Amino acid sequence: MTLPESYKQMFSTVSEDGKLTLALHEKSMPTPGADEIIVRIEATPINPSDHAVMFGGATMADASSSGEGVNKVLTAPVSSLAMAAMKGRVGQDLPVGNEGAGTVVSAGESEYAQSLIGKTVAVMGGASMYAEYRCVPATQAMPLLPDCTAKDGASSFVNPLTALSFVETMRLEGHRAIVHTAAASNLGQMLNKICQADGIDIVNIVRRQEQVNILKDLGARYVLNTSSDTFNEELIDAIDETGATIAFDATGGGSLASNILIAMEAAAARTPAAFSIYGSTKHKQVYLYGGLDTSPTEFTPRSYGMAWSMGAWLLPNFLAKADLDVGERLRMRVTEELKTTFASHYTHEISLSDALDSQIVERYNAKTTGSKFLICPQLEM
Amino acid sequence: MTLPESYKQMFSTVSEDGKLTLALHEKSMPTPGADEIIVRIEATPINPSDHAVMFGGATMADASSSGEGVNKVLTAPVSSLAMAAMKGRVGQDLPVGNEGAGTVVSAGESEYAQSLIGKTVAVMGGASMYAEYRCVPATQAMPLLPDCTAKDGASSFVNPLTALSFVETMRLEGHRAIVHTAAASNLGQMLNKICQADGIDIVNIVRRQEQVNILKDLGARYVLNTSSDTFNEELIDAIDETGATIAFDATGGGSLASNILIAMEAAAARTPAAFSIYGSTKHKQVYLYGGLDTSPTEFTPRSYGMAWSMGAWLLPNFLAKADLDVGERLRMRVTEELKTTFASHYTHEISLSDALDSQIVERYNAKTTGSKFLICPQLEM
Repeated sequence: MTLPESYKQMFSTVSEDGKLTLALHEKSMPTPGADEIIVRIEATPINPSDHAVMFGGATMADASSSGEGVNKVLTAPVSSLAMAAMKGRVGQDLPVGNEGAGTVVSAGESEYAQSLIGKTVAVMGGASMYAEYRCVPATQAMPLLPDCTAKDGASSFVNPLTALSFVETMRLEGHRAIVHTAAASNLGQMLNKICQADGIDIVNIVRRQEQVNILKDLGARYVLNTSSDTFNEELIDAIDETGATIAFDATGGGSLASNILIAMEAAAARTPAAFSIYGSTKHKQVYLYGGLDTSPTEFTPRSYGMAWSMGAWLLPNFLAKADLDVGERLRMRVTEELKTTFASHYTHEISLSDALDSQIVERYNAKTTGSKFLICPQLEM
Repeated sequence: MTLPESYKQMFSTVSEDGKLTLALHEKSMPTPGADEIIVRIEATPINPSDHAVMFGGATMADASSSGEGVNKVLTAPVSSLAMAAMKGRVGQDLPVGNEGAGTVVSAGESEYAQSLIGKTVAVMGGASMYAEYRCVPATQAMPLLPDCTAKDGASSFVNPLTALSFVETMRLEGHRAIVHTAAASNLGQMLNKICQADGIDIVNIVRRQEQVNILKDLGARYVLNTSSDTFNEELIDAIDETGATIAFDATGGGSLASNILIAMEAAAARTPAAFSIYGSTKHKQVYLYGGLDTSPTEFTPRSYGMAWSMGAWLLPNFLAKADLDVGERLRMRVTEELKTTFASHYTHEISLSDALDSQIVERYNAKTTGSKFLICPQLEM
């Protein structure tokens, strides 16, 4: 197969004077090393976890696009406040796109690399998936089962591995049930399927009735709506019934994470025990893994007793700490259940150039619309 | 030796109608079981960790005492707000006093219990040390070395084991240096001696120049004063130099714990690395173990990167989780270094009845005076 001499790849750049530029750069097609492969990227999702690098803290409401096709460029202003946090990246062209899938179109001389030619694989890591091609170590690609397309495999890592790793974290840290917020998300739905398959209780927290319905339709037993007048009481009841002492919170702001710790302590206090000023002894853990709620985070440690922890949870950090065979086991499960447990649904399929259109950006940047965009880099630009 | 038929013991009671009563009750002298001993309590300190049970959330500024000698009773009002947190103890007579030391005056028939008769021992656990006598399992008592008095051994557990367990926690969780706040405390001084002996860097944070002097006199290398205009910069420098990624915070309120996480992240950012929106990957841990600062706790998780945790730290919870031999090893070190590393100094020695005097309570309840009270239950009442 003859490959083109160059290809297009998306880069995000924040300039010294506070301007974000998102554009397609021309890159030379590399020659793969012995253990490397070249993947023609056919499907790569836009996840919330891609936004931060893409948008660089810019005020996206003021974004605008110019140019057409491969020359389209998106620019947006970065406020001086936001620039303070961008110091580490000023002037650097950062690649974007955390995961995707496509066909292996070239390979180095090693036997394993050669064996992948023609196969459909999923790839994660290096944040360079918003591109027409990508050169990666052969072992970094995850071959899909024969009946899976690149679109099926585009979201094989971020959400599936996060959902599976929540359950791993729960087990590793000695808990037996989970509380999850923003629970009707793609990730949340996967987590419910995993928990049902593995016989783990999960307390789902959402904020709208339609989200309750989505999860109930999936067979979820505990689905609480924060807009209910009796939400706090329902939360204590559900935690008491399930024994959930670990929570994964996608909101990161407001009072939800704090209220979960308070509810866990209140649930523990229902079990008769000798009075202790230090509260219950079972460790209660809340992990913040997202930032959907940008309001200040409430934190009242004196209400949590003396056996609790709140901390950040990040997939790469978890996998780096976990035993190697854990990552391998989780990837295996994703491969096998890609069209069931880990099926993703996209509302829009767009080209690399479309992804730089300010009106389209506005839609995939909105966190509440329920739309999910897939970039198909082989679409005509 | 003939023991009295009964003895006095302090109890704290919160009534349904919001009144705290602290009084001495008459208790029958028990007959020790085969593996038990009776200790005549001769010295028992009043630690901040005793206050919460003793005072039951009462407004101690409005406390008053009546009666004399063994009949002295202290009462104080508990506000309706504070009563909400006291639900678990209403109507119960709670024993007080977490640790102390004295002479073994009687023992059950087992060989080990018998071997302790006449020995001076330290005792922790069960919070019943504010009493003239106490019956405990023989294995729960820690025999002191022959040259140690009950006064030397009165504070053998709470501060010494906490200081040693901070270092254990640091090692177990993979850190190499410590940040400690309210660092000129009795506990903080012990921690500095341990760290110097063990070759561990410690960043001490205090808030007054006289506290800087105390620690400098002890040979501490890093002593930072929060009232310095350049405190935050000094903190980042000290964390950068020492590589401290774990902190133990006694204040619990205000912005200090949050600022330590921010400073740890800022120190990590000084090491050149590829830009990551997730910040540094080394895990940063702040433990809250006290509540000296009662103002609201600042908490800005978005400033800490994605590799951090904030949580409560409590000695009994740590020891319960640690391997059995850890507790044994720490107790051994305390025994051997009781008159050096773990020496405590008391400014006042009082009787059990004195401890119920509202004017004396006012002095040992004040957290800033530098005074340290020792109850000597054998003093005439």
